[in-house]
Amino acid sequence: MDTMRWEDDALVLLDQTKLPAVVEYISCRDCDSVAGAIRSLQVRGAPAIGAAAAYGLVLGVRQAQPENRTEFLAAAEETARFLAATRPTAVNLAWALNRLLTRLRASDAADPQELTALLLAEAHAICGEDVAANKRMGNFGRELVPPGARILTHCNAGALATAGYGTALGVIRAAQEAGKHVSVYADETRPLLQGARLTAWEMVQEGIPVTVITDNMAGYLMARGMVDLVIVGADRIAANGDVANKIGTYGVAVLAKEHGLPFYVAAPVSTIDLSLDSGADIPIEERAPEEVTHLAGRPVAAPGVRVWNPAFDVTPARLVTAIITDRGVARPPYRESLKRL
Amino acid sequence: MDTMRWEDDALVLLDQTKLPAVVEYISCRDCDSVAGAIRSLQVRGAPAIGAAAAYGLVLGVRQAQPENRTEFLAAAEETARFLAATRPTAVNLAWALNRLLTRLRASDAADPQELTALLLAEAHAICGEDVAANKRMGNFGRELVPPGARILTHCNAGALATAGYGTALGVIRAAQEAGKHVSVYADETRPLLQGARLTAWEMVQEGIPVTVITDNMAGYLMARGMVDLVIVGADRIAANGDVANKIGTYGVAVLAKEHGLPFYVAAPVSTIDLSLDSGADIPIEERAPEEVTHLAGRPVAAPGVRVWNPAFDVTPARLVTAIITDRGVARPPYRESLKRL
Repeated sequence: MDTMRWEDDALVLLDQTKLPAVVEYISCRDCDSVAGAIRSLQVRGAPAIGAAAAYGLVLGVRQAQPENRTEFLAAAEETARFLAATRPTAVNLAWALNRLLTRLRASDAADPQELTALLLAEAHAICGEDVAANKRMGNFGRELVPPGARILTHCNAGALATAGYGTALGVIRAAQEAGKHVSVYADETRPLLQGARLTAWEMVQEGIPVTVITDNMAGYLMARGMVDLVIVGADRIAANGDVANKIGTYGVAVLAKEHGLPFYVAAPVSTIDLSLDSGADIPIEERAPEEVTHLAGRPVAAPGVRVWNPAFDVTPARLVTAIITDRGVARPPYRESLKRL
Repeated sequence: MDTMRWEDDALVLLDQTKLPAVVEYISCRDCDSVAGAIRSLQVRGAPAIGAAAAYGLVLGVRQAQPENRTEFLAAAEETARFLAATRPTAVNLAWALNRLLTRLRASDAADPQELTALLLAEAHAICGEDVAANKRMGNFGRELVPPGARILTHCNAGALATAGYGTALGVIRAAQEAGKHVSVYADETRPLLQGARLTAWEMVQEGIPVTVITDNMAGYLMARGMVDLVIVGADRIAANGDVANKIGTYGVAVLAKEHGLPFYVAAPVSTIDLSLDSGADIPIEERAPEEVTHLAGRPVAAPGVRVWNPAFDVTPARLVTAIITDRGVARPPYRESLKRL
């Protein structure tokens, strides 16, 4: 099952808002529909939205019908600004768009068709490299997973969050492929249930035993000695090793510390943002209150309540045992180990 | 709005599974329907199910139509055993039933009608005393609440969880009545959303500002300095001060400790079970997987997943700043302070 593919000059995305009940692909033929798919979380996960935005840039420039290199560059820059603004927290979005712009500027091609081909090739490269990076990450990460490990994960950092294979779930897959007989606890991950809907679905398809819990059960699960380690993904990692990831990650990290459990973060180096000194500088997206007050379109909370709905939180580096990347495993102090990668 | 009332020889219960969308009362005319209402959480909360079970005992004995004192006592004991088995964790259930049986045995009445009247009077007494106890608890507890306090609570320990006024929410009400201008953060409390559905509804009705968050936001809320203290209720408190309460309470307590925030438990002395040495002895109810895998009757998780669904967890005494009861505030060491109450 592909998270995304390029087909007939369109970006075809697996609609993740409908999983697991309905497996449906949507075809994005212009930049607006890619932006809409990113905003509405039809495609989500830091590496996946980076890759989707790269294709969105191709579509946006094509729509602009630039007649020369100058017009092409202007259209590309404008489209990149538009796409970068869809979601603020994951750095992979800006990273992928900048990579395409850099590639454009480095080429001396003048023909718009040639420049389009070059952008598309770069978008394909991002996808292909992402899968390869995840597999390398899996190889590094599986060494940290003991045989028979019971692994808690939060949200979905799987094939669906990437171009394929996954970051946190990539490590779990690699451990399983290495014969380690792991099992997984998936936090359901309110409000949008990426754990129950997506992670559990990926694990069932993979034949890895998976148990879904509500987010508030993680503490008791650890207290009962039912977990050996935690692995999560990341949306942005600051130079000091602070990690922005799905809301609730911080709470899980505090609980892991309380119970003496390793807390691992798996993310490609494209998720590391050395331009930010610490997690305090990472912009945290707040989303619509209806995500919290409504379930399946029906209101559950009393009218008149306020809602706070940050989509991410920041886990301080001191709670992170190690960061598993495609270039190796970084250990504290992260300011040095991340720079070395 | 009454949580329950005795009317025309029936126990009338506010159906809490339908709140806040629908305000509907159900009329229980026999013991089975009371047991069903307790099992299905139409009535829930430790003190409330104790009071409901007391009325259920009256209904059960009446159905048995005992012709003498011996038959009456036998019927009462059998009904009590049946009702006590509906839910295992909250000790108030057994406490209320035992109180009625003790009252029966202490009387020397022989006439079944007289004995029924005596049971009913005792059930009424439990209800009346519960409200009074909650108000005393509020008076003791409000002293611990600073002016302008931003209070996090989990699940619903309000008027709806008791015969009226509430335990944790009673303290919040009392603080508000004392002019302290508090505000509340309500964990939504998955899987059954008692926080979003019930606590938020009570606070809106009371005019106390309330913000709903998903359970996994509590950590980030604290890290951002948005909470001053935590107050929760309890389903059973062991002799050493360990507290069984709604699943997720333990996680909140660990987070409160991490952030140096006071973590208060509010519960009447009927919730304290000195016969249990520690929380390890408290039976923890596990409920149906569908509570986790389904929302509003529709499946959200992939078919084939396992579920772990404990309805409660145990917070160790070391994480509890104080226990607010109707006889005063107990501080560590709890083994002594709880016995003194």
